[in-house]
Amino acid sequence: MRQYLKINEWSIIEESFDPSTHEISESIFSIGNGFMGQRANFEEKYSGSSLQGSYMAGVYYPDKTRVGWWKNGYPEYFAKVLNSTNWIGINVFLDGTELDLAYCKVSDFVRELNMKEGTLSRRFKAELEDGKQVQVEALRFVSMARHEIGAIRYAITPLNFSGTIRLVPYLDGDVQNKDSNYDEKFWLEVEKAAAADISYLTLKTKKLDFHVTSVMAFDVFKDGNKLEFAPSLKEREKFVSSEVAVEAAAGEQITLYKYVANVTSRNHGLGQLVEAGTKSLTAAKEAGFDTLLREQVDTWAAKWSESDIIIEGDESAQQAIRFNIFQLNQTYTGDDDRLNIGPKGFTGEKYGGSTYWDTEAYCLPFYLSTADSSIARNLLIYRYKHLEKAKENARNLGFAKGALYPMVTMNGEECHNEWEITFEEIHRNGAIAYAIYNYVNYTGDKSYLGQYGLEVLVEISRFWEERVNFSKDKGKYVMLGVTGPNEYENNVNNNWYTNRIAVWTLEYTQEVMNYLKEHEQARYAELVGKLELKDEEIAKWNEIIDNMYYPYDEERGVFLQQDGFLDKEIIPVKDLKPEDLPLNQNWSWDRILRSCFIKQADVLQGIYFLGDQFDLETKKRNFDFYEPLTVHESSLSPCLHAIIACELGYQEKAYEMYLRTARLDLDNYNNDTEDGLHITSMAGTWMSVVQGFGGLKVKDGALQLHPFVPSHWTAFSFKVMFRGARLNVSVTEDSITVTNETETPAAIVIYDRSYTIGGLGEVQYARSSVRV
Amino acid sequence: MRQYLKINEWSIIEESFDPSTHEISESIFSIGNGFMGQRANFEEKYSGSSLQGSYMAGVYYPDKTRVGWWKNGYPEYFAKVLNSTNWIGINVFLDGTELDLAYCKVSDFVRELNMKEGTLSRRFKAELEDGKQVQVEALRFVSMARHEIGAIRYAITPLNFSGTIRLVPYLDGDVQNKDSNYDEKFWLEVEKAAAADISYLTLKTKKLDFHVTSVMAFDVFKDGNKLEFAPSLKEREKFVSSEVAVEAAAGEQITLYKYVANVTSRNHGLGQLVEAGTKSLTAAKEAGFDTLLREQVDTWAAKWSESDIIIEGDESAQQAIRFNIFQLNQTYTGDDDRLNIGPKGFTGEKYGGSTYWDTEAYCLPFYLSTADSSIARNLLIYRYKHLEKAKENARNLGFAKGALYPMVTMNGEECHNEWEITFEEIHRNGAIAYAIYNYVNYTGDKSYLGQYGLEVLVEISRFWEERVNFSKDKGKYVMLGVTGPNEYENNVNNNWYTNRIAVWTLEYTQEVMNYLKEHEQARYAELVGKLELKDEEIAKWNEIIDNMYYPYDEERGVFLQQDGFLDKEIIPVKDLKPEDLPLNQNWSWDRILRSCFIKQADVLQGIYFLGDQFDLETKKRNFDFYEPLTVHESSLSPCLHAIIACELGYQEKAYEMYLRTARLDLDNYNNDTEDGLHITSMAGTWMSVVQGFGGLKVKDGALQLHPFVPSHWTAFSFKVMFRGARLNVSVTEDSITVTNETETPAAIVIYDRSYTIGGLGEVQYARSSVRV
Repeated sequence: MRQYLKINEWSIIEESFDPSTHEISESIFSIGNGFMGQRANFEEKYSGSSLQGSYMAGVYYPDKTRVGWWKNGYPEYFAKVLNSTNWIGINVFLDGTELDLAYCKVSDFVRELNMKEGTLSRRFKAELEDGKQVQVEALRFVSMARHEIGAIRYAITPLNFSGTIRLVPYLDGDVQNKDSNYDEKFWLEVEKAAAADISYLTLKTKKLDFHVTSVMAFDVFKDGNKLEFAPSLKEREKFVSSEVAVEAAAGEQITLYKYVANVTSRNHGLGQLVEAGTKSLTAAKEAGFDTLLREQVDTWAAKWSESDIIIEGDESAQQAIRFNIFQLNQTYTGDDDRLNIGPKGFTGEKYGGSTYWDTEAYCLPFYLSTADSSIARNLLIYRYKHLEKAKENARNLGFAKGALYPMVTMNGEECHNEWEITFEEIHRNGAIAYAIYNYVNYTGDKSYLGQYGLEVLVEISRFWEERVNFSKDKGKYVMLGVTGPNEYENNVNNNWYTNRIAVWTLEYTQEVMNYLKEHEQARYAELVGKLELKDEEIAKWNEIIDNMYYPYDEERGVFLQQDGFLDKEIIPVKDLKPEDLPLNQNWSWDRILRSCFIKQADVLQGIYFLGDQFDLETKKRNFDFYEPLTVHESSLSPCLHAIIACELGYQEKAYEMYLRTARLDLDNYNNDTEDGLHITSMAGTWMSVVQGFGGLKVKDGALQLHPFVPSHWTAFSFKVMFRGARLNVSVTEDSITVTNETETPAAIVIYDRSYTIGGLGEVQYARSSVRV
Repeated sequence: MRQYLKINEWSIIEESFDPSTHEISESIFSIGNGFMGQRANFEEKYSGSSLQGSYMAGVYYPDKTRVGWWKNGYPEYFAKVLNSTNWIGINVFLDGTELDLAYCKVSDFVRELNMKEGTLSRRFKAELEDGKQVQVEALRFVSMARHEIGAIRYAITPLNFSGTIRLVPYLDGDVQNKDSNYDEKFWLEVEKAAAADISYLTLKTKKLDFHVTSVMAFDVFKDGNKLEFAPSLKEREKFVSSEVAVEAAAGEQITLYKYVANVTSRNHGLGQLVEAGTKSLTAAKEAGFDTLLREQVDTWAAKWSESDIIIEGDESAQQAIRFNIFQLNQTYTGDDDRLNIGPKGFTGEKYGGSTYWDTEAYCLPFYLSTADSSIARNLLIYRYKHLEKAKENARNLGFAKGALYPMVTMNGEECHNEWEITFEEIHRNGAIAYAIYNYVNYTGDKSYLGQYGLEVLVEISRFWEERVNFSKDKGKYVMLGVTGPNEYENNVNNNWYTNRIAVWTLEYTQEVMNYLKEHEQARYAELVGKLELKDEEIAKWNEIIDNMYYPYDEERGVFLQQDGFLDKEIIPVKDLKPEDLPLNQNWSWDRILRSCFIKQADVLQGIYFLGDQFDLETKKRNFDFYEPLTVHESSLSPCLHAIIACELGYQEKAYEMYLRTARLDLDNYNNDTEDGLHITSMAGTWMSVVQGFGGLKVKDGALQLHPFVPSHWTAFSFKVMFRGARLNVSVTEDSITVTNETETPAAIVIYDRSYTIGGLGEVQYARSSVRV
């Protein structure tokens, strides 16, 4: 871990060029717009270490599974986020010598990710081996306003010489995934053309027939005057380029504007890709770079007005929380219900797939609170659309009915192939059910239940029904052979969290049935028919609800993570030697498994989700028992601990937990940022602030707040969207002020006092009355 | 499963050629001599489906591990049995057309594995597409008397034409392992020469620098008259050949004798391989084919005199048991303590490695009873030599002391990479300790204990000491996160068998210490120093012995396979649908894991090993509980069930279990014989007969017999070596006759009557007194 980035409240800034941290920066300075995204690769050639990465949302490759020992039930393939055409490239030659920062003296290097405006810029001076010096200033963005468009302004000025500058903008589809299981290239060329005005390149994936067309055009200016030119064109396999040679005197600035449209067969007919791309591109180029940039700034301003968090008294924390919000908004915009939030977003290849239970458990709250409810709804519909695949998956694993959602997926099919996770980490089904509750509870949108929700709930309930078995020995229902959220235990019996969320699903499904029976009789009748719902299965669910076994330690009054947990040696993490940590890098797997150490919240995950069901004392006993045993080696762990710690009044512990992920990537805390950013855990940091320090919950249709200012800050404020209203919650040591920035009134509770805050109204709660 | 082989008491015979079963036959008709071996590939070209396989014992390749999800502690490589130079090849051309059974009409085909004499022969008529007919008779063997020598007699007679027959004997090192993880070839050429008299080819492995030299010479005869010729020679990468063209009239027989010596750097200096091979070869060729063949017959006769089993009234059973004994004797001869018994011997590549716990648990009893005790002793010394590697392995997994032997190995290092087995199937350590007891108990050779045994026992005991932990909850020592012999459970707590064999090791180690303290004081003192044995550790062992936890069901009076076993739905295998079986082909892995179904003996493995510690009623209760739950999807399972069933008087059940493996490969019962034979489970079948139906045990220095004749047989007899004596035990329905074929007297017990059987003496036990 080396902190080399400058602290700034709205920007990430790197002030010198260091090849050893370049790949980390490539991750951190990534840009995206939900439709496409890319790592912060250089426009000009760079022959040093670099992870080239340009990604199109929803365009993936089913790479043949690699496995040591095949188990029945493993999927045949693993869907990979697909590295696609490099469309940012502009090779630069100075009197015949190629500009390549690996072979230059680089000075005055500044790279900046402007999060307020959504742009990536870079400037530097480079001295070539022959002594020629140039100044480069580059700015690029992927348009939030026009999802298919990317634009680059690349300006180069010879400083100490006059000569020929050749600029070669290109589209290069001859790219590879670093994580390809068998070193395969995944793309085939379909068509291409290099032309003076517009060049294009269409590729298709070797499997699944995804087509992607990139179309480019460019203008060149000298000191602000547009040049006319006849570029020399090149085509080779999966590659097109145009080349322009410009004579420049020392001090003259040559500026290339490169416009690219990337269109895919996900949104256009196969035969219409070049036409669609050309149309998008032409419109963008006609609007011009400055207009596109202004649109970008405006769109981001709107995003920030919905989701910003302001932290006072700690600029580093301010930068970090904005970075997380920025990356989340870049990754998922919510206007395509076939997309989801990949664990690395558009910043790397690792983990493949696009969808983990992270979406429901960690990301949904962020999108619920910072965007229109349709965005979160689309995340739910994504799973609804995969219901048939989830049923198939259960059938493949031998279940007669019900649905088991995959652990990792792109299109609803399971990708993951590690039996203890693929087949056993079935609590994911619970999180998917819980997300329905969470959405309806937050938004009040009960229409979702009849339209989509109940079908998913019933099929998940049916899975639980079949997955438990009655233990004659215990006289209870048990659930054998599962892996809980804590992946440092595998194949355990009666994981408390899984048993609890299963029973909760059975209960909530019936609650929804009862609601629909009363309020949407016709639709309910229709669903009973469609789902072939039988009274006997409901009776069976109730029998399971009444007779589920939950491991519990009477003496300590804590829920036991699983059967036999107390047979372990119970040692707090603080008693480990520092060189043992992180365990996953220092201990053999079996040693981790038989230890008491917990990777991420497990019992506490249940206490977080089902917070209303447990009194404070119960929460405290469980937190006090489990938190000291938790190593937080999943970046998804500390946030839940922070939130519960806040509720328990453990303010310092909460802040400690918050710090574990707040700058995870900016400070390369886990030494793996070069692989890409931890996008889904960024939502966890947001949760720490808003649900933790802000104490935000929604109960009985009211937004509840229970905030305090961490001692390291002087004040903080956050925006939340709630049932049509946009509220700004400002917390200082003296008071809590909630301002309604919309016309829509909202019910809120601050601590235990209830308010209705009218359109454009404000509520103040004075510190003297604050009880934490 | 299709039975296509002829029943014959001394031979395996295939009477027609069917390409669809050719690869199965290639496995079944494999020949070997402990030093090298090969599948029954054809000498002439065969372009149909075939698994080419020629193997040199102890010559392996460390193939880079393939894994889906890397876990800390996994080994970097998996040692592969290495397919090496094809030295049997003789291409045949008839007037320019190559003889290839894939393109001929084949008739009168007979392939025979003569187990009495140790030869593989084949004869057939082939009609080529142009109508030419030839008769071929081939005989080959790998010499048991001269381990480096293989010899082939290949005779061909044109039947309906006169013409040129070209014969091309060759050595081809351009071979590949089918199971190569990354499709690599593992061999490099070192040197070669094709010459008129002697040709050779030396290859080395890309890693580890194993060198193998094959040297060949040949003679050609026409109707018994030796021909002089100047062969045309060919060399290409990793390949040498000689070619002889002979004019033959219809009815004239052309016979080629091919002699090959295969020598390796395991037994010769790197620079001396060609010389050593040439010397071996020259001596063999000078002796001539008939002499080599006579040596072969004689050596096998001696083997059979030590290990034969005769079954009367069931020729199919007779054939099967001899097949098993034959293959075991081909695989391991015991005169090289660096070698071991691979699960596929020299018959295929599958499973790689050479050594599993199969050796100690299943093969040792066979070699103990059918060969000089030095053979079994070498199997023990093999593990002694790997002790330092086993200590390293424990250290790699985080243990401060002790030794954990690998699950699969070639050179003492772990090869296997499936965490639930590699790290958790630690009961293998118990079997390795038990083998020392078994050897000493059987042979009476207590010198082994001071010389080698105690060191292994102490290091294994230290491993167990560190591997258990004290459960405050149970007030007992527990062993968490293990996989027992039943691999259909993973990562369980308190596997009864593992707990029991661990405590047994701690007890036996002290017994051996006490013996040495009393009888070999000086050596004991030396070992205490070398091992740095401390009183505190012995005290700790005794504390563990006294306070170990064993899961037990009071109600049923059975040992529980592991914690929580009774939470499962207990369903007998007979209630499964036939289409569910075998489970490992029809159920997803998680479903198998959470079911009650048992892959192979687990609790019963302990009851078998530690038979003296349990009364008949206890054995019966456990057998009655577990046997109905056992699917025997390991070929190592039925034999133990057969033996215990015999002891319990369940004669029909015992016979049923015996049948499960008796003809496993001959009848291709598991539909996988084409991959190679189940060598180690063949020892299990031998155990079923001798320890089961024969009731053989050794107790207090006496060989105990408790035989009965299965109702499907009329009588049976078996040979056993026991403390220098060779005994023939003949069991009929009327009597048991034990004949001592040596001068060495032996103590025996038949049922409960004790005898000392003098040199060349005989004991008869009349049926009237038989109580079973």
